[in-house]
Amino acid sequence: MSKARYLRRMKHALSVTRDQDFAAWYQSVIAEADLAEESGVRGCMVIRPWGYGIWERIQRLLDDRIKATGHENCYFPLFIPLSYFEKEAEHVDGFAKEMAVVTHHRLVGDGKGGLVPDPAAKLEEPLVVRPTSETVIGAAFARWVQSWRDLPVLINQWANVVRWEMRTRMFLRTSEFLWQEGHTAHATAEEAREETLRMLEVYREFSESCLAVHVVTGEKPENERFPGAVATYSIEAMMQDGKALQAGTSHFLGTNFASAQNIRFQNAGGEFELANTTSWGVSTRMIGGVIMVHGDDDGLAVPPAIAPWQVVIVPMLRDGPEDQAIIDYCRDLRGQLGALSALGEPVRALLDLKAAKAATKRWGWVKKGAPVVIEVGGRDVAGGNVSVIRRDRLYREDGKLDSRVMPRGELVDTLQQVLEDVQAGLLARSTEALRARIVPVEDWAGVEAHFAEGVKNPGWVDVRWSKPTGAALDRVVERLKALKLTIRNAPLGQTHRGEGSADAGNCVFTGEPAVERVLIGRAY
Amino acid sequence: MSKARYLRRMKHALSVTRDQDFAAWYQSVIAEADLAEESGVRGCMVIRPWGYGIWERIQRLLDDRIKATGHENCYFPLFIPLSYFEKEAEHVDGFAKEMAVVTHHRLVGDGKGGLVPDPAAKLEEPLVVRPTSETVIGAAFARWVQSWRDLPVLINQWANVVRWEMRTRMFLRTSEFLWQEGHTAHATAEEAREETLRMLEVYREFSESCLAVHVVTGEKPENERFPGAVATYSIEAMMQDGKALQAGTSHFLGTNFASAQNIRFQNAGGEFELANTTSWGVSTRMIGGVIMVHGDDDGLAVPPAIAPWQVVIVPMLRDGPEDQAIIDYCRDLRGQLGALSALGEPVRALLDLKAAKAATKRWGWVKKGAPVVIEVGGRDVAGGNVSVIRRDRLYREDGKLDSRVMPRGELVDTLQQVLEDVQAGLLARSTEALRARIVPVEDWAGVEAHFAEGVKNPGWVDVRWSKPTGAALDRVVERLKALKLTIRNAPLGQTHRGEGSADAGNCVFTGEPAVERVLIGRAY
Repeated sequence: MSKARYLRRMKHALSVTRDQDFAAWYQSVIAEADLAEESGVRGCMVIRPWGYGIWERIQRLLDDRIKATGHENCYFPLFIPLSYFEKEAEHVDGFAKEMAVVTHHRLVGDGKGGLVPDPAAKLEEPLVVRPTSETVIGAAFARWVQSWRDLPVLINQWANVVRWEMRTRMFLRTSEFLWQEGHTAHATAEEAREETLRMLEVYREFSESCLAVHVVTGEKPENERFPGAVATYSIEAMMQDGKALQAGTSHFLGTNFASAQNIRFQNAGGEFELANTTSWGVSTRMIGGVIMVHGDDDGLAVPPAIAPWQVVIVPMLRDGPEDQAIIDYCRDLRGQLGALSALGEPVRALLDLKAAKAATKRWGWVKKGAPVVIEVGGRDVAGGNVSVIRRDRLYREDGKLDSRVMPRGELVDTLQQVLEDVQAGLLARSTEALRARIVPVEDWAGVEAHFAEGVKNPGWVDVRWSKPTGAALDRVVERLKALKLTIRNAPLGQTHRGEGSADAGNCVFTGEPAVERVLIGRAY
Repeated sequence: MSKARYLRRMKHALSVTRDQDFAAWYQSVIAEADLAEESGVRGCMVIRPWGYGIWERIQRLLDDRIKATGHENCYFPLFIPLSYFEKEAEHVDGFAKEMAVVTHHRLVGDGKGGLVPDPAAKLEEPLVVRPTSETVIGAAFARWVQSWRDLPVLINQWANVVRWEMRTRMFLRTSEFLWQEGHTAHATAEEAREETLRMLEVYREFSESCLAVHVVTGEKPENERFPGAVATYSIEAMMQDGKALQAGTSHFLGTNFASAQNIRFQNAGGEFELANTTSWGVSTRMIGGVIMVHGDDDGLAVPPAIAPWQVVIVPMLRDGPEDQAIIDYCRDLRGQLGALSALGEPVRALLDLKAAKAATKRWGWVKKGAPVVIEVGGRDVAGGNVSVIRRDRLYREDGKLDSRVMPRGELVDTLQQVLEDVQAGLLARSTEALRARIVPVEDWAGVEAHFAEGVKNPGWVDVRWSKPTGAALDRVVERLKALKLTIRNAPLGQTHRGEGSADAGNCVFTGEPAVERVLIGRAY
């Protein structure tokens, strides 16, 4: 690192680098980019405007895709009666452990100036704050579905859910989080399976096009299935520390939930059948993935498609008589840029007029990861210029900040292309990082060596396995657990499909002939 | 009513008319228009796609306005520790009564196949499900605000809140509801008062432009203030049964919350001052207002600005060989209409291909209140025509359904104007209904006569009052309560301002010289 760069870093950058301590770096990006903060309520965070703005962009872009595939949004109750969980034993086993339980509906004074739940207002049946809504939505489906004509039912909900977590980490694992949960019911298993994979593909395309995060789509192993699911699929993303982040899941539930909740329909022949259902969801966890894929030692870099502001104009004022001319110039520029389109939408351009020093604002927007920051001083106004910083290539080769002076007209002419290049460049970098960190390994010794203590950033390994089930799978899971590893998924579309295939070989765990390849790694 | 109309009604219309039983009619519109339904969870409703679609439109249009006035969206925790409510006594008195209280964070089996809250997982401090977020947001403001440079803080949140209600009514009063709550902090009381009134004006303009619901803006009397507020303002709408609906509120909180929560800033002179705060909100209750303003005995009529689908195309199929030509024609038409703009946005046009009879679909969309329904049969295709039904003028003078055959080109040429006319027409009707039902009354005897038992649809009265406070106000409230009346608000911008004004006179309650006029009515 050049001295100039070093000095700049000292002044403006994060207090910790990714190399020094990835976990501490992650927290510091969240703090310095004003994404979120601890709320004072255990396990719950406050999502601040820049973080929530990213979530709003995610919502808008994903919601368009969910609607384009025929789904409608609904809203179901926050509270689920305890008895709903009792109906389906398997579901209870999976979710009943840690949930917020409402037991009273009133507070009263305790006679000592404090408040307590009113003993006279105890609920007859406690209510659970939804950890997910299969049970309450299934009950609605049972009311809505009578005939084959009522199918498919294709609905989605944007909501908050609560899973009481002992160890929390902002965005990645919080007691309350925001998500969407899609729920559908179909006449046949085949249709429901198609739906499950269709939504997985929507997630993949969304993740790559909008988040610029390359992911692997695949099926989770049996032990990682959603409780009650016949098959669970995921998109898995590669973080910069080599760990995996499960960024979205899609479940084929077969008739398991329909049977517990009595979702039946009369088919064209007049007979009653159970519906086949699916569910699928992504959450605010995705923002954690964006941070760990696109962040660097200067803070976050937000892909233009999901940046609340894609271009921020910072006027360099000096509390002097020329300030008004600078502000007028900036206002006019903002109007000009806002009239452009990029990535299929009007450009989101902000003029930052907050009462702070221009350098503080510049570095604030760098930390937040605004894709393009434009500085305008008196000299720029005089020359009809602007000074442009691109977040995705902040420094020149000599380590100095890469701030380019250009005629204002050039900025206007090229901005659309710049934003599209930044978006594509971030995706290309993510694709490259994913590919470079997945290593094929032939046997268990290779797995152990790959993940031996002290190996930095091992990424994932790609191995053959025989897809054991039951107790044999438990033994595999235990062996992996000792190395802090999990099976991420069995990628879709792989050519390896067992004996006789070009990629035939033996399972790294059992030594038996393998039937497919799976990805193994450490994970969030 | 003509016989033809009577017969149609019998077949398709609601089971009850407004005249017969307004409350039952309201419930039947909600059911027949597929807006919402009981969830099986006490006091909580399921908002179905058509109802939620209206809410999404409300969110989008109001959010644009909230952002245009400089506010940013955030998200704060669902749970509020009990101690936060203890901090501010006045706030506790107002809200502590009926709230959902979380006391446990785990469920366990009861040994009898059921589940119970785990006694070993009792929370040290119970958590309240937010009834509103002043306390938790105030705590964040105290962290965020240090200097005058940090002010104003202008934020908003879209969220679910819970107020345990003993008697619930869908959309109007449910235990859980959806809303937005704006919260702001300012350096001066003057600025905060301006903000309070600015957002009240945003609500008025939104209600009239988007909901087509004319409202009266004004200040609530002291007894109706939000607990802890210095002043509370509301928008009040007139329902078809003459009752008032408070459709939104905006509160000037002075330094009351800032003092309890220690929101202090250093002013330009280096001294510490308390901030002045505001809060303002509207909720899913607005949908109840839309139903009771625009509904009729055929169901709901949704103003085009908030209609999830503004135009619905129903192909009249006969399970015959000409069906495909009809579907192709409709698909093409849908594309053509979707390329148009009305009310500043692309037209939202749906082709309804559900497996049901055309007449069932037509009446389904009438009940839902889609502004324009287009039917296309084989004869229409042959002639290049469409059959158009406008929801706002469903019947001809002779009582028959007013379905107009017109060339397809005419529909395309006129649709934008039709949608804008429907929107304007609904607002004009609402304005007229509000004005016609507000009657000036000079004395208490006049009030009693106006609201005497048996008087149908009395609307509101407009009276002079001396704005009593404390015990004198309590006596006024009691007298009104005996007639089931409340003071709705003191309209803004009134010319009457006490003695010497052109409208001088005496208070209907106290006989003392009046200082302003207030509106009085029955209310939801």
